[in-house]
Amino acid sequence: MHSFGSDNHSGIHPDILKAIEEANRDHVHGYGEDIHTETAQKLFADIFGCKESYIVFNGTGANVFALKCATRSFNSVICAATAHINVDECGAPEYHTGCKLVTVPTPDGKLTPDNVMPLLTGFGFQHHAQPKVISISQPTELGTLYTLDEIKALAGLAHSHGMFLHIDGARLSNAIAALGCTPKELTLGTGADLISLGGTKNGMMIGEAVLFFNPALCTGNGMYERKQAMQLASKMRFISAQFCAYLKDGLWLKMAAHSNRMAQYLKERIGEIPQIRITQKVETNGIFAIMPKELAEKVRKRYFFYTWNEAKNEVRWLTSFDTTTEDIDDFIAYIKENL
Amino acid sequence: MHSFGSDNHSGIHPDILKAIEEANRDHVHGYGEDIHTETAQKLFADIFGCKESYIVFNGTGANVFALKCATRSFNSVICAATAHINVDECGAPEYHTGCKLVTVPTPDGKLTPDNVMPLLTGFGFQHHAQPKVISISQPTELGTLYTLDEIKALAGLAHSHGMFLHIDGARLSNAIAALGCTPKELTLGTGADLISLGGTKNGMMIGEAVLFFNPALCTGNGMYERKQAMQLASKMRFISAQFCAYLKDGLWLKMAAHSNRMAQYLKERIGEIPQIRITQKVETNGIFAIMPKELAEKVRKRYFFYTWNEAKNEVRWLTSFDTTTEDIDDFIAYIKENL
Amino acid sequence: MHSFGSDNHSGIHPDILKAIEEANRDHVHGYGEDIHTETAQKLFADIFGCKESYIVFNGTGANVFALKCATRSFNSVICAATAHINVDECGAPEYHTGCKLVTVPTPDGKLTPDNVMPLLTGFGFQHHAQPKVISISQPTELGTLYTLDEIKALAGLAHSHGMFLHIDGARLSNAIAALGCTPKELTLGTGADLISLGGTKNGMMIGEAVLFFNPALCTGNGMYERKQAMQLASKMRFISAQFCAYLKDGLWLKMAAHSNRMAQYLKERIGEIPQIRITQKVETNGIFAIMPKELAEKVRKRYFFYTWNEAKNEVRWLTSFDTTTEDIDDFIAYIKENL
Amino acid sequence: MHSFGSDNHSGIHPDILKAIEEANRDHVHGYGEDIHTETAQKLFADIFGCKESYIVFNGTGANVFALKCATRSFNSVICAATAHINVDECGAPEYHTGCKLVTVPTPDGKLTPDNVMPLLTGFGFQHHAQPKVISISQPTELGTLYTLDEIKALAGLAHSHGMFLHIDGARLSNAIAALGCTPKELTLGTGADLISLGGTKNGMMIGEAVLFFNPALCTGNGMYERKQAMQLASKMRFISAQFCAYLKDGLWLKMAAHSNRMAQYLKERIGEIPQIRITQKVETNGIFAIMPKELAEKVRKRYFFYTWNEAKNEVRWLTSFDTTTEDIDDFIAYIKENL
Repeated sequence: MHSFGSDNHSGIHPDILKAIEEANRDHVHGYGEDIHTETAQKLFADIFGCKESYIVFNGTGANVFALKCATRSFNSVICAATAHINVDECGAPEYHTGCKLVTVPTPDGKLTPDNVMPLLTGFGFQHHAQPKVISISQPTELGTLYTLDEIKALAGLAHSHGMFLHIDGARLSNAIAALGCTPKELTLGTGADLISLGGTKNGMMIGEAVLFFNPALCTGNGMYERKQAMQLASKMRFISAQFCAYLKDGLWLKMAAHSNRMAQYLKERIGEIPQIRITQKVETNGIFAIMPKELAEKVRKRYFFYTWNEAKNEVRWLTSFDTTTEDIDDFIAYIKENL
Repeated sequence: MHSFGSDNHSGIHPDILKAIEEANRDHVHGYGEDIHTETAQKLFADIFGCKESYIVFNGTGANVFALKCATRSFNSVICAATAHINVDECGAPEYHTGCKLVTVPTPDGKLTPDNVMPLLTGFGFQHHAQPKVISISQPTELGTLYTLDEIKALAGLAHSHGMFLHIDGARLSNAIAALGCTPKELTLGTGADLISLGGTKNGMMIGEAVLFFNPALCTGNGMYERKQAMQLASKMRFISAQFCAYLKDGLWLKMAAHSNRMAQYLKERIGEIPQIRITQKVETNGIFAIMPKELAEKVRKRYFFYTWNEAKNEVRWLTSFDTTTEDIDDFIAYIKENL
Repeated sequence: MHSFGSDNHSGIHPDILKAIEEANRDHVHGYGEDIHTETAQKLFADIFGCKESYIVFNGTGANVFALKCATRSFNSVICAATAHINVDECGAPEYHTGCKLVTVPTPDGKLTPDNVMPLLTGFGFQHHAQPKVISISQPTELGTLYTLDEIKALAGLAHSHGMFLHIDGARLSNAIAALGCTPKELTLGTGADLISLGGTKNGMMIGEAVLFFNPALCTGNGMYERKQAMQLASKMRFISAQFCAYLKDGLWLKMAAHSNRMAQYLKERIGEIPQIRITQKVETNGIFAIMPKELAEKVRKRYFFYTWNEAKNEVRWLTSFDTTTEDIDDFIAYIKENL
Repeated sequence: MHSFGSDNHSGIHPDILKAIEEANRDHVHGYGEDIHTETAQKLFADIFGCKESYIVFNGTGANVFALKCATRSFNSVICAATAHINVDECGAPEYHTGCKLVTVPTPDGKLTPDNVMPLLTGFGFQHHAQPKVISISQPTELGTLYTLDEIKALAGLAHSHGMFLHIDGARLSNAIAALGCTPKELTLGTGADLISLGGTKNGMMIGEAVLFFNPALCTGNGMYERKQAMQLASKMRFISAQFCAYLKDGLWLKMAAHSNRMAQYLKERIGEIPQIRITQKVETNGIFAIMPKELAEKVRKRYFFYTWNEAKNEVRWLTSFDTTTEDIDDFIAYIKENL
C-alpha cells in the first residue's frame, strides 16, 4: 500500500541499492577514508561548490551538527516556528548546541527580512543570547519555496549582522528541481553559508550531508564535532556509495522532479473534491489541505497521513520518488468512495 | 586486500545484504513503526531477555544513549582507562550526558571489584560527582574476556551501591561465542542492567542496539532520549531487517565464532615468528603484539593496522567474519618476507 | 543620584548589612552547614510551607537550577515571551537544562490557560520536546500581577498534564505585598510546585533561594544539582544571614510594600505629564510608559533607565525599597524641565 | 571555636567588610558598570598584567567559566587527579564545558612535563578528545608549590602543542606570598594563559575572578559566557569593592603570608607529637598528616577537619588569615590531651 504520510515511508531507489551492493567488496578503511567517500566529497564540491562536506546519519544529526559548528553556546538561531529544528527534533538543537531557538510565526513557513529584522536585537548586550544563525528550510516544512532572491536577501541580512545563513535542505533536491536552477545557483549563488543536504527522503536508505560554503566555518573542527555528535559512521563507504549513485547523472533531481510532478497531479485530482481545500501553495512534493474530520478518519482506514493542525482539520500529504499516477488515482478514488 | 586493521573494515554479510534488499518493498511507516522493527525487538527480547530495546546508528550513539538513560548529569561512570567510551568517542559521553568518567588503569582492560572499590566513594557528598554506572566492555578493547562470574561480581558491586552495570557489547557476539554460553547467561544471568549490542563490527552495514534489562530503566523516556541523541533512523526498517537476519538461525554467533577461530589461527601462525610477542590473551577476535618498529613499517606497506601503544611498539590486529585462513597465511608470509 | 533603572541599582538595607556584620564572627562550616543557613531554611519552611529550600547566588542561577531539578533534557518549558528566563539569561536555561523554551506572546506578560493550552501538544510523540514545566513570573517582567485564582488555574492545568508550575519570584515580595495575601496563600495555596525567591532586588546584597513544594521534586538530587550549577556558596552563612534578616519581622514585605507605594506615587505624578502614557497596569514596583524619544534622551542625561521597546518608545522605571517621594518629586521636576 | 577544617570556615577581614559598608551608598548600575568594578579591573590589570578580567561568584564558577572560554566541547583538559576541578566540583567542568578531564596521578598534586607528555596524544585523530588546556593548581590541593620555572616549563609545553595553561589560583595569594615573587612574575612571567584568582578563601565574603593573559582568549565572548554560566552578579559593586580592599596595600598578600606562617607554626608544633606524621611539604597554608584513627576521632569532638585519605588515615588542616598562635597552641594542647 502506497503511503502519502511521508517521503521517508518509501524505500531505496534501485540504483542506490545497487551501489550499496557494489560497494560491498574488499576491505576498506572505516570512518570515511575510502574511495567512495572521496568520490562523494568530490561530487559535493563539484555540484554544490562547497568547501567542506560531512556525511552524517540523519536529518536531525545534519542540522544539529551544522548549527554546532557555526555557534557557541551563548548564541541564538532564528528560524520559522514551523522549522524542523524547532518542532521535530525533540529539542536536540538546544541540547546539543546550547543555543536558544528564536522562532518566527509565519503563514507559509518562510522567513523574510521583514519578519526576521525585529529579532536582530540585543547584540552586545550580555544578558541576551547573541543571534548567530538564520536557519531556513528550503523547501519549507509547508512545501513552499524561497526564490533565489529571497534567499539572497536573507543571506545578506545575516552577513550584515555577522551571522550565518543555514539551509535545512532535507528536501533540497525538490527545491532545486522545482526552481529549475542549478545546484550552485541555490548554494554559492545565494550566499548560503552552510547547508544540510538530504538523501533519505529522496530514495536513499540512510544518509545526509552537511556542506560548508563559508571559509570561516572550515576551522578544522568539523571532524571532531561530527564524531562528538555521534554522527560518524564506521562503514561510511555504504553511505557514501549511496550519495555517489544519488548524485550521478542527476538521479537525485530526476527523482525530485518526479515527486514534485506527482504532487501537482495530486493537487489537480484533489481539485475534483470540493470538500477538500488546499491551504498552501503546492510548489514541491507536499500538499496541505483542510478536509472534514470524519472524511479524514475514513480515509485513514486505508491510508496513513499526518494531521498537521488538529484545530483546523488540516492534513499533510507527501509524494515521493516512487509515487505513481496509479497510486494517486487509487487514493482519490478511495477518498471519493468515502465522501 | 584483506585488512587486519579493524573488524569494521569488512563489508556486509550476504545474508544481511539480502535482508536489506528484501525489506525494500512497499511503503512502511518510519521511525520504527514497521514489521521489521517489531520482529527485531521481539528477537532481542527472546534471545537476550531484555525488557526494552532501542535500535541506533552506531557504537558511540549506543553507549552514549545508554549512559544518558541511566544517569543525571551529576553522576559519574566508572570504566577502564582503555574503554571505548573513554578513548574513542571524542568526549561524546561527557558532552552528551554531562557525567564524569572515572577511569581505572588496568593491565588487561578489565575492571574487578578490587580495582573499582576504591572509586566508590563520595556518595552523599555534594561536591563529588555521584557514581551511578560501572561500564565494562565485553570483550574488552584488548580482546580479553570477563567470565560470567566476574561480570556477576561487578553487577553485584554496582547494585549494592545503587548503581547500574552497563556492558559495551560492540563485540558481544564474539564474547558469547568464545564463552560458549547462551546469550541470556551473559545478560539476564549476570545481572547486567543495560547493554550496547553491536552489529556493525560483525557483518552488518549500519546498526547497533541498546537493551535495557533493569525495569528501573524502562521509564518511558527512552524514545525521547534516542531522538534527542540524534540516533532515531527514519527508514529504520533497513537497520531492523539487518538485525533480523543477523540474529536469525544464529548467524551472528556463527560469524563471531569464525572470527574468533581466525584470531586463534593468526595467533598460532604468529607464534612462528620469534620477533613478535603477543601481549594479551587471545580470547576473542583481537591480537595485540609487540613487534620491531621497522618490521611493522615494512608490513604496513601492504597491510594497514593500528599502533596500539607507540611507546611499546605494540600493534593491534583484528579478524572479522570474512577473514580466511588464506588471508592469514598471506599475511604471515608477507611478514616473514620482511623479517 | 537615585536610579529608576532597576531595583538592583539600590544597595543593601541597613538591617541586612548588619546581619552580615553580626554573622562575621567565629569559624563556621562552609557550604550551608551553619546555624544561619539552618535558621534561614526553617524560615523558608515556616513562612512559605516549602519542603526543601536551596540558597543560590543570583536570579538566573535560581531559575536555571530550579528548572534543571524539574526536568530531563528532552523536556520543554512554557513561558511568556517576555519571561526573564527567555529574554535576560543569555540562553542559560537552554544551555544548562537542555530544554526547549516554548514562548507565548502576551500583551501583559501573563500566561493563561487559554494561551498555554494550544502548546500542550505532542505528549508521547517522540519527535517533540515533552512539555514538563509552565513557568510564570509573579509579578511579571511587566510589573503586572497574577491573582491567586489565576495561578491556581495554571497550576491545575500543569498538574492535569503531569507538569510542574514554576514561579520566577525574583520580586515575589512585591507580589505578596500587592496582593495582600499571606506568603502561603501564594505558594502552597495555589499549588505552585517550585519557586525562585528573590532577595537581591529587594534590599539584599547577594542571594536568592529556590523552594520546592511538590514532594516529587525532593529527590535528594538538589544538592548535587546546585553544586554542578555553580551555585553553592562556600561561606554560605553570609547569604543565609541576609535572608534571616530579610524575613525577620516581615522586613521583606515592608520593603516591598514601600516600593509598590512609590510606584503608585510615581504613576500619580506621571499623570501630570500628558506627553507620557503609561502602558501597563501599575500593580507592583514597575512602570512602563511611552514617552517622546527626545524627551527620554534629555531625561537620561541625569537619570538612567532602560528602553523596553525601541519601536514603541516604551521605557521602564522601577522603584525600590529605598525610593523616596523626594526622589520621585525630583525626577518629575526634571522631566517637566525638559518638556 | 577556631576551625582547621578549611580556610573558608573563616569570616570576612574587617577591612573588606568595611569596603562593603562603604560601597553601600547611592544607586549604581548593576552587572559591573560601576566605579568599584572599574577600579577592581584596573587593579587586576596593574597587579597581574592581565588583558581582561571577570568577577564571578565562586571557585567552581571561576574554573568552569575559565575553561569554557578556552575550549570547544570536543577538547580535553589535563589536570592532576587531585585537582579541585576533578574532585570537588561535582562534575561541573564536564557538564558545562563538555570537555573530558584527563587526569594524572601524582604523589604531590603537581603536573610536570614528564607526567603530562604521555597524555599529549591523539592530536588530529577524530576519535579522540583534543587536548586544549593544561590546568594546574597553584598552590596544589596538597598545599605544595610549583616553582616559577616549573610553571614556565608547563606553559611552554602547552604552547608548543597549541594549548593553554590554566592556573586554578583559589589560593594564589598563598603561593605568591610563599614564593616571595611579584604577582606578575607568577602570571605574565610564567606564560600562564588564564588564571582563576581566589578571594573567598582568604578573607573575602564572596568573590573570585578570572584573568585572561593570552590575547587569543580576549574574543569578546567572555561577558556572554559569564552570564550563561550564571556567574554575573547584579549588585556586582559589592564583590568588586571587596576585591579593591583585598588588593589595596597588599592586604591579600599580608593575609596569605600570615596564614602560611601559621601553617609553619602548626607544622612545628605537630612535630612535638610523634604519633602524627606530616605527609606533604608544608609550603603554603595546608598540612596533611597521618594520625591514628582513634586520635583523630577524639580530636574531632572539639575540632572539625576533613579526612583526606580514609585508607591511609590521612587528614588535612588548613590555616587562614585569622588563625592565631593561640588557636594553634589550644589545638595542640587538645591533641596532646587525647593521646
